[in-house]
Amino acid sequence: MSQSPRAPSVNATSSHLSHATKGLVTQSGLPLLPLYEPEGGAQASLGRPGEFPFTRGVYETMYRGRPWTMRMFAGFGTPAQTNARFRALLAKGQTGLSTAFDMPTLMGRDPDDPQALGEVGREGVAIATAADMVRLFDGIALNQVSTSMTVNASASVVLAFYVLAAEAQGTKPAELRGTIQNDMLKEFIAQKEWVTGVRPSLRIIGDMMAYTSRAMPLFHPISISGYHIREAGATAVQELAFTLADGIGYVQCGLAAGLEVDAFAPRLSFFFDIHNDFFEEIAKLRAARRIWARVMRERFHAQEPKSWLLRTHCQTAGVSLTAQQPLNNVARVALQALAAVLGGTQSLHTNSLDETYALPTEEAATVALRTQQIIADETGVAKVADPLGGSWFIESLTDQMEAQALRIMAHIDQMGGIVEAVEQGYPQREIGNSAYEFQKRIERQEEVVVGVNRYTQAEQSRIPTLAIAPDVEREQIERVRAARAARNAESANKALEAVRDACQSGENLMPRLVEAGRVGCTLGELCGVYRSVFGEYRDPGGF
Amino acid sequence: MSQSPRAPSVNATSSHLSHATKGLVTQSGLPLLPLYEPEGGAQASLGRPGEFPFTRGVYETMYRGRPWTMRMFAGFGTPAQTNARFRALLAKGQTGLSTAFDMPTLMGRDPDDPQALGEVGREGVAIATAADMVRLFDGIALNQVSTSMTVNASASVVLAFYVLAAEAQGTKPAELRGTIQNDMLKEFIAQKEWVTGVRPSLRIIGDMMAYTSRAMPLFHPISISGYHIREAGATAVQELAFTLADGIGYVQCGLAAGLEVDAFAPRLSFFFDIHNDFFEEIAKLRAARRIWARVMRERFHAQEPKSWLLRTHCQTAGVSLTAQQPLNNVARVALQALAAVLGGTQSLHTNSLDETYALPTEEAATVALRTQQIIADETGVAKVADPLGGSWFIESLTDQMEAQALRIMAHIDQMGGIVEAVEQGYPQREIGNSAYEFQKRIERQEEVVVGVNRYTQAEQSRIPTLAIAPDVEREQIERVRAARAARNAESANKALEAVRDACQSGENLMPRLVEAGRVGCTLGELCGVYRSVFGEYRDPGGF
Repeated sequence: MSQSPRAPSVNATSSHLSHATKGLVTQSGLPLLPLYEPEGGAQASLGRPGEFPFTRGVYETMYRGRPWTMRMFAGFGTPAQTNARFRALLAKGQTGLSTAFDMPTLMGRDPDDPQALGEVGREGVAIATAADMVRLFDGIALNQVSTSMTVNASASVVLAFYVLAAEAQGTKPAELRGTIQNDMLKEFIAQKEWVTGVRPSLRIIGDMMAYTSRAMPLFHPISISGYHIREAGATAVQELAFTLADGIGYVQCGLAAGLEVDAFAPRLSFFFDIHNDFFEEIAKLRAARRIWARVMRERFHAQEPKSWLLRTHCQTAGVSLTAQQPLNNVARVALQALAAVLGGTQSLHTNSLDETYALPTEEAATVALRTQQIIADETGVAKVADPLGGSWFIESLTDQMEAQALRIMAHIDQMGGIVEAVEQGYPQREIGNSAYEFQKRIERQEEVVVGVNRYTQAEQSRIPTLAIAPDVEREQIERVRAARAARNAESANKALEAVRDACQSGENLMPRLVEAGRVGCTLGELCGVYRSVFGEYRDPGGF
Repeated sequence: MSQSPRAPSVNATSSHLSHATKGLVTQSGLPLLPLYEPEGGAQASLGRPGEFPFTRGVYETMYRGRPWTMRMFAGFGTPAQTNARFRALLAKGQTGLSTAFDMPTLMGRDPDDPQALGEVGREGVAIATAADMVRLFDGIALNQVSTSMTVNASASVVLAFYVLAAEAQGTKPAELRGTIQNDMLKEFIAQKEWVTGVRPSLRIIGDMMAYTSRAMPLFHPISISGYHIREAGATAVQELAFTLADGIGYVQCGLAAGLEVDAFAPRLSFFFDIHNDFFEEIAKLRAARRIWARVMRERFHAQEPKSWLLRTHCQTAGVSLTAQQPLNNVARVALQALAAVLGGTQSLHTNSLDETYALPTEEAATVALRTQQIIADETGVAKVADPLGGSWFIESLTDQMEAQALRIMAHIDQMGGIVEAVEQGYPQREIGNSAYEFQKRIERQEEVVVGVNRYTQAEQSRIPTLAIAPDVEREQIERVRAARAARNAESANKALEAVRDACQSGENLMPRLVEAGRVGCTLGELCGVYRSVFGEYRDPGGF
């Protein structure tokens, strides 16, 4: 480029502001450090990113070294339909899979179970057999992709089917990466989807932790989930406290299964909701890491630094979306997603604008994924680790979140632990109270919901929504019946008996479930064994 | 609510976490302070919000005391059409008006001027007479609303028409609140829309500053605009430096018009672009306030604290929007808008998702307005002043932005000031270089634009766009011709001569323009006087 002799470029400008500056720079070319901290060096209560107590993040380089996983929750209709959506999302740059199962699958019922009627494939994909799982991941190399499966009461059976789907691709369990939600405590607390009671549920989880720590060392056997607790109406503080209390419960469960804490603690993972209050959500994730690191090191004496890390998936708040003026949801989700990233999440699902109407259309899910890509690639917020660290407000709010959550957690300890607290209905009741208060605040307009209790308008946008074909249910019913007819009945019966025996003897269930899946036992049959051996659960009632 | 005796509520929890807590609280009910600062009290380089040098904001209470003005730029077609859009936006909760004029109006041409052909009402509203301005604000009480008018080369005439529109409502000039952009330096630097040259343009601006400081004390006679500089390809640092250098030029212009600095400095306002790099944009606004406060106090010896304040409007970056996958723009705009708010803006326009295609439809403009309302009412970010203050990263980036901008400003001073720099083409050339570098970075994928150079897709969303009725041009031509035919020709000619005399004598033009508008002189005729007296401008050429 020619420079006019009348107006020479300022040298300092050229060297510091040129867009071509090498290394880490702002959009304008200002040089950036990978980390900013106080002059005296890291504060003990914060640590550096990657340093105890991990307030500032679990990895030293955070997103520069390892971008968060963009993981869109997806599933509807038949395994083949969801397979097509998975492939579309991967083709669009999604970096991990996340599977939504339908209500019958979640509740341990086959498509032809009378209780499944009208629900097959409606809110997620219908999976009744290991063969269904093979179809779900057809053409997707399970040794390449990390898969999240959102399933709890029937998680042990689904995990067995997943192992079999991998086996069909020639992939060993040890190669599998991903997460199964498998958090029954939050089901009893908030989501209310169970097959059997609290203590047998925890025993099954203990078996899964033991099995995965041995056979699937790269797989997270549990995702300790605040999401549903929050969606049920908990405050951010309650979400934090109850989720970490659940986490403590699972550590105790692993120890009770005879495992060393460092053998399974590095594979515990978390799942938080990211609601509207921008800074509170950031503070929540920072406080969560600090509390967990101390709990694991000081209470459970974990020696491995990896055992101290709270690694988490986040999802933007489904309850914050509005049916009214649905394009507003794109803005809400973008702001919530940014909070998740500034809070240091490892993985993120962004809700689609149409999720208050139906399961997301592919176009709506694409916009939600693009929102993450814009945050990652256009805003520059991933360049510097914990960019808000040191903000007087954020640090104070982090301290407050931590202090308040610790009070609730101490109260649960006083009650004898989370299992007792859940059996007494304590978290259920507290959440009910908060949900009621929040609703009253909305009615009084102390909480504003744009388009709902302020800035309402008569005309409504029309957006396309996803329709589930009515023949999905019939198709899945025929498929499971054909599978039962085609299998070797004697092998299937033997395998079911072996599961029953293991339920009673205390032997690890997982190898038995894999065996049963292999010979064609269905999800409904296997969960039926749980129901018959362990009995059904009755809610103590909450609010 | 009944409490179970088995599980008493934790008292500390109830009192601190209850949603019903009075005062400033998070969504979860954590108590908030209105301001967070270091233990030793405010740092001199930051000050508290409302304290010199205003790094943390211009008002002590910031958005708690005075929410930012939600001001959507709007205008198209005839005055009556734009009037309808204004009324719709006000009905939807917009808190200020912002007027877009069409190209002929901006360039000082009447609708029947051959140079206006095909442009009448296309990119903004067509205004040729004071009567058009009356129609534009029909039924909108100008003593109640604050109005921004984005017009520069013909701003003096438009302001005169605005005074007459108010007069028609019985409103005195002294009651009028709002802003006229009127920043010709940035036109010569970046936007390239002028009627006459640099020095006569500054003389006209000086007249407007003198007139408004006397007759319209609540009105901002200039909005010193980095927006167009940035959109033309400047970096954030260049935008900051050139805009503040322009500001210095206008202070000199006001002093040259014989005004005391404190008589007009409190009515100078600014206008910045908010581009993608989230933290850089926040740092830019913080640095801008600090630099300007020091310039006004230390260089121009302004005594009034109000003279030190950099109050600014912001607009999300038009150039960052993509025609591809247009719903992604809702996410972009939400993130940029949040940066503007965290940076402490006083007023904000959020771009509509369809603006790369056409002027926004009412639905698209509504989504953009709702995005601001969501930030204001749902995210909680407006509760605490300067919430990012103290972040090691943000404070460091603010310091860097300031230092780099000061270098460029010092260079302009060395050249003899901004007028000389512009006449020598210095900022023009620097911006050209940056634009070229940025384009190369996009081509090399060093800058990612989601949907454009990454994550592209074949299928494109269809969105509705606003069509301007083809008869707008004919209608406006007929209206201006009818107005010329209906007026008293002798009065009109006399008034035009009086304007010509004032151009030559140095007498303040504004009273003459108001008089001329009152007797029906048109915008094209009045700007024609400028052209004939002052001559046309030739660009020194940039890059």
